[in-house]
Amino acid sequence: MAENEQSKESVQESLQQVIHLLAKDGLADELDREQDTQRPLTEMLAHKQSLAELQQKLDELHPADVAYVLEALPIEERLLVWDLVKAARDGEILLEVSDAVRQTLIAEMDSNELLAAAEQLDTDEIADLAPDLPHDVLQELMVSLDLQNRQRLESAMSYPEHSVGALMDFDIVTIREDIALEVVLRYLRRLGRLPDLTDKLFVVDRENRLRGVLPLKRLVVHDPEVSVEEAMADDAVVFHPEEEASDAAQAFSRYDLVTAPVVDADNNLVGRLTVDSVMDFMQKESESEALSLAGLREDEDIFASVWKSLQNRWAWLLINLCTAFIASRVIGLFEGSIEKIVALAALMPIVAGIGGNSGNQTITMIVRGLALGQVSTHSMRALLTKELAVALLNGLVWGGALGLVAFALYHNFALGLVMTAAMTLNLLLAAFMGVMIPLIMTKLNRDPAVGSSVMITAVTDSGGFFIFLGLATLFLL
Amino acid sequence: MAENEQSKESVQESLQQVIHLLAKDGLADELDREQDTQRPLTEMLAHKQSLAELQQKLDELHPADVAYVLEALPIEERLLVWDLVKAARDGEILLEVSDAVRQTLIAEMDSNELLAAAEQLDTDEIADLAPDLPHDVLQELMVSLDLQNRQRLESAMSYPEHSVGALMDFDIVTIREDIALEVVLRYLRRLGRLPDLTDKLFVVDRENRLRGVLPLKRLVVHDPEVSVEEAMADDAVVFHPEEEASDAAQAFSRYDLVTAPVVDADNNLVGRLTVDSVMDFMQKESESEALSLAGLREDEDIFASVWKSLQNRWAWLLINLCTAFIASRVIGLFEGSIEKIVALAALMPIVAGIGGNSGNQTITMIVRGLALGQVSTHSMRALLTKELAVALLNGLVWGGALGLVAFALYHNFALGLVMTAAMTLNLLLAAFMGVMIPLIMTKLNRDPAVGSSVMITAVTDSGGFFIFLGLATLFLL
Repeated sequence: MAENEQSKESVQESLQQVIHLLAKDGLADELDREQDTQRPLTEMLAHKQSLAELQQKLDELHPADVAYVLEALPIEERLLVWDLVKAARDGEILLEVSDAVRQTLIAEMDSNELLAAAEQLDTDEIADLAPDLPHDVLQELMVSLDLQNRQRLESAMSYPEHSVGALMDFDIVTIREDIALEVVLRYLRRLGRLPDLTDKLFVVDRENRLRGVLPLKRLVVHDPEVSVEEAMADDAVVFHPEEEASDAAQAFSRYDLVTAPVVDADNNLVGRLTVDSVMDFMQKESESEALSLAGLREDEDIFASVWKSLQNRWAWLLINLCTAFIASRVIGLFEGSIEKIVALAALMPIVAGIGGNSGNQTITMIVRGLALGQVSTHSMRALLTKELAVALLNGLVWGGALGLVAFALYHNFALGLVMTAAMTLNLLLAAFMGVMIPLIMTKLNRDPAVGSSVMITAVTDSGGFFIFLGLATLFLL
Repeated sequence: MAENEQSKESVQESLQQVIHLLAKDGLADELDREQDTQRPLTEMLAHKQSLAELQQKLDELHPADVAYVLEALPIEERLLVWDLVKAARDGEILLEVSDAVRQTLIAEMDSNELLAAAEQLDTDEIADLAPDLPHDVLQELMVSLDLQNRQRLESAMSYPEHSVGALMDFDIVTIREDIALEVVLRYLRRLGRLPDLTDKLFVVDRENRLRGVLPLKRLVVHDPEVSVEEAMADDAVVFHPEEEASDAAQAFSRYDLVTAPVVDADNNLVGRLTVDSVMDFMQKESESEALSLAGLREDEDIFASVWKSLQNRWAWLLINLCTAFIASRVIGLFEGSIEKIVALAALMPIVAGIGGNSGNQTITMIVRGLALGQVSTHSMRALLTKELAVALLNGLVWGGALGLVAFALYHNFALGLVMTAAMTLNLLLAAFMGVMIPLIMTKLNRDPAVGSSVMITAVTDSGGFFIFLGLATLFLL
């Protein structure tokens, strides 16, 4: 027990050890010097030993931990380590690494290696890898599968990325309802082992239609003479392949599920969902949300090449540049006013900045409420009223404070009043748009989370400059 | 089966039905008119019937779904619905709602109601509620528990919020290793039922020290004559109460666990972790991260009072106000230059804005890498080099483009050059600080995620204004 416990606690330690072994005798420089046959024999032997040590260390690690180590290493060292990993584990490890890192690994493998790696995997796992595999490898793979598995692979690949169908696997153990639990137990003993995470058996009729589920918990606490029909639960939560994976994830966490059957429109059992794939999905979702908020298109390998990084980041930078340019032109409208009262130039970023901050607070709340389905037309008016009230109070308090500061700095009472008024109006604008933007995007069937922060900031920047400089032009000149 | 499937798919529908019932006959106005005894008898009867319908609907819902409905209703309607929920389910539902909503519900309950609700719960669940319970209720609760449960509650409450100890429950089924599986099966049949999510039994010795685990999967596939010792796994992943919950969450997702034993320093079994509590924890974590990025202190009830919302949002607004004020004073330094070339005022927000955007991209990558433990001193230099290279290229390309635009707008070639140079320098500053801020915060043992976005934006704003206006003052005047 102690041994394995250690292996859990030491993913970071394992990484440190690998880094240490790579550094030892400059293994990491290996690649640069591969052609260098002039090295003394003793040095080469030392290298060989270090390599063997490193390989042994890697063999001891869980595939998920090898994946972790690979993700944490710069490209060259990563590929050196990848070379040392036993080919028999390539498939499992490819499944565990992030999309971006997987691409760097697959790029280094030839067709035969890829084929060998994929052939170790289950059909649903191959479907997960498929988008990253070269076309010819995928074709060859298809040919090598038997009919059932080929059909499964094709169907798994046919479902859109965020659907239950893309997430499900085919590790299902089915039984009939008219037999005794004793018979079930004998059947399972003959099977010898059950798929990972199996917490229930699926009860189907002769046509493979789902009749219910038999949790192992019930199997072991009921008398062996009881029939499956009596012991099974016929109110199991079931999913359909075309359902949204995120709805399934919410159901899993709401009803504390470990596995659940997936059935088609005719109630035929077609696969199962497991809590681990649901958890992975949730993690990826929340991560990609965080990344998109920061203006990154997708999960980036932190050791990606400069070129890859640029591709990942250009889109949002360009959008940002456009909104900044618009804000700049708004200021340009009022250059005459700024020339006369240069203090406006110093004060205007405050008005825009606080509006952006407050607008982001509002829009984050609303987007979250929409994602959870808690914001409806029913509650919209209440929300808008509340957000406007919060904005008004914030505007009077902070706007008032800033108005005093502006007055103190520039000894201009009217300037202070304009500052207070502009901040209050921009906060009201931020609150209004913070509620409306996500609602409108939802009406247009677009994901309100994507780009919401950029949009609200664009509005509060340009709006803030316009309101402040406009008021100043009206009342101070 | 069909019936329950529907109940899964219709959380949103249930909400709509509840809203519909609330609207019917103006049930929602009930509260305003409670004193109004002048209502005609027929109207009162209709109300009574609507209430009964609503109550029936609520009784049909899963506690998690009732929680969902409560969270989606404005305060008054929420409390009306809460009144209708069967008291016997209060405890379960309080566990399911978010912290902010829980507070609104508990505020409406008297000590007896709270006590009754808490007494329906397991010890670990009481511990979860405890922080929100009034002191006297908690005291009375303690007195009502037997010795073992009181000790468990005290120990569960003693662990810090984000530790394994705070997350674990006590629903453990233990067996000895020297008995046959047949005996285990007989024991389980006598027990009659197993705790939720049980996927393994814990094997302990006479002193309650953990010897291994017996997955139900193994129990059902092995011959009944085999002993527990032969069938059990002695390499189970175990946790300690004082471990970080987030490390446990990573281990759960890495090793696909459903439940895992929690042992103390002497290997005594003290509790278990389950995948559902780990999932809940992960969801809360990623949510609170998203909220703090947007400048919200904590999970906000979207129907919170204006006053509560202000409290939740003031802290970050104030910080933002301070950084905006500093940026404004930086501009103030160069008012003389702006007076002479007013175009500077219009162009400066672009330099600051792009720097902020790019800096946020970098810092998000680094914070994420640090959270996963993938960024070490070993890889720091490689990362810094890469980020600076990306910044340099972005600066030359976008800075160059903006320089041309500035030239076209203001027919001033030197102004275009200053624009390009300032954007490039600010992007380099953003990249450098984007890598350094999280690393320094980690060195200071602070969470690099908290406030990182505010800090990098403060740097790129003030820095951007300083660089652009400074270069302009040096070269254009």
